Amino acid sequence: MPLNTEDWFTEVAPQDGTAFSLKLKQKVHEEQSTYQRIEIYETERFGTLMIIDGCVMLSDRDNFLYHEMLTHPVLFTHPDPRRVLIIGGGDCGTLREVLKHPSVTQVHMVEIDERVTRLAEEYFPELCSANKDPRAQIHFADGIQWAADAEPGGYDVIIVDSTDPVGPAAGLFAEPFYRSCLRALGPQGIFVQQSESPLLHSGLIKSIHDELHKAGLVNTQLLCFPQPVYPSGWWSATMASAANPLTRFREDAQQVKALNAEYYNTDIHRAAQAVPEFLRKLL
Amino acid sequence: MPLNTEDWFTEVAPQDGTAFSLKLKQKVHEEQSTYQRIEIYETERFGTLMIIDGCVMLSDRDNFLYHEMLTHPVLFTHPDPRRVLIIGGGDCGTLREVLKHPSVTQVHMVEIDERVTRLAEEYFPELCSANKDPRAQIHFADGIQWAADAEPGGYDVIIVDSTDPVGPAAGLFAEPFYRSCLRALGPQGIFVQQSESPLLHSGLIKSIHDELHKAGLVNTQLLCFPQPVYPSGWWSATMASAANPLTRFREDAQQVKALNAEYYNTDIHRAAQAVPEFLRKLL
Repeated sequence: MPLNTEDWFTEVAPQDGTAFSLKLKQKVHEEQSTYQRIEIYETERFGTLMIIDGCVMLSDRDNFLYHEMLTHPVLFTHPDPRRVLIIGGGDCGTLREVLKHPSVTQVHMVEIDERVTRLAEEYFPELCSANKDPRAQIHFADGIQWAADAEPGGYDVIIVDSTDPVGPAAGLFAEPFYRSCLRALGPQGIFVQQSESPLLHSGLIKSIHDELHKAGLVNTQLLCFPQPVYPSGWWSATMASAANPLTRFREDAQQVKALNAEYYNTDIHRAAQAVPEFLRKLL
Repeated sequence: MPLNTEDWFTEVAPQDGTAFSLKLKQKVHEEQSTYQRIEIYETERFGTLMIIDGCVMLSDRDNFLYHEMLTHPVLFTHPDPRRVLIIGGGDCGTLREVLKHPSVTQVHMVEIDERVTRLAEEYFPELCSANKDPRAQIHFADGIQWAADAEPGGYDVIIVDSTDPVGPAAGLFAEPFYRSCLRALGPQGIFVQQSESPLLHSGLIKSIHDELHKAGLVNTQLLCFPQPVYPSGWWSATMASAANPLTRFREDAQQVKALNAEYYNTDIHRAAQAVPEFLRKLL
């Protein structure tokens, strides 16, 4: 059935031979920022939708999967996460989830494009509901430079919530950046990064693991989870550390309940650590 | 980006406001069988593709996820699965996976549409590689009637590998059919059924659990797994039994290795049992 392009937003992944479409009610905003083209739509069934450079960033309906899985596993893996750095994450959903953890005393969110955050404040207000938390500092700056300049050992957890590894985000998937992160974390810190689709991007996942190892983040743990609006509907994050073990985590039923999560729970944490057989052989 | 409909197959899910497309090389077959419209394509990146009544049934590239998860969890959960009934499963991928289990002595596959199997033999020969196994009997008949007529206690495991719950498959998601299955299984048997998308069809999943309970299959266990070519890319199966516990399973490293699986392993089995928080509350 042909899709009328007036009524649908379609993201084509040419290298994968796939496309994913969402039915629209209307376009509500479009602009070219200094860094990228940003569009906002109201969809029929997925709520508000943000597109950057033609790629789906998030929808109201299913962003809980990605935001919960990029934050709660790493924060429950660290024994006492206090100071957190988020690189990217301009929609503020990751910031909101991090701030649900009572141990956290300070979060620096470093997003390169202020317009993403300003549009999130307008069109995704529930994701920005923690932006005024006194523990949160939002900086509009280059995350690679921020990590390079960071005080050694100044963070317990670094979360990289970026776009795909092309353009300005490419440097976030390479050894020099990982070395900066390790220095900023100190030996006890834990790093996590969105790492694309297990089915479509297994080569990239392998490269991320290899670069992390080269940088000295020698423990790595893949986390898999669903994300329907991203290519293949199946997504991953990669945790890494120099010393902290990544397979055990704090199981605190009270604290998990207080998250009010839609996807995450202790069983889901453990489940995300299971590595599919084809990836176990590759990694 | 508009999709040239000559070059792409697109499945629209109107009630979900989503569409998924695969880039094509060419259409290689199309026919109207007694039951449904069947199309076969060669895709750019997902190998051969079978479409039934406009819905993606399977692709070469990712059918391993669905077929492994519909078979290995239930067969490792049963203490000694010997006699297996597959309802549907015309592409024979489920049959092939079942026959990898050395305890299995007899498999009845009951597919309503012989044309699906004949086309699978031609276009998906690797899925049909076990069709000549002396333990396998393929019958072209109505699965609902087959279950109603089955010898009481004649099967250890019943696997329902059907299309969506519309048209002829609707009866496969309702209490009378489940009662037939329970009788055919006897008290020690285990049932499993593909149960659609956790995100898009949670109401159906709840209804399946409720109907199973009403029929006397009072233990239920949801299994979640990725399936990129199905709507949302996230899929599920529901296991059920009258007596056998469903959370424990045989962990036999030798036997798992012999499966030569691409997705399934013992960790993945356990992971599939983790129920997302929003579904835990619903079920």
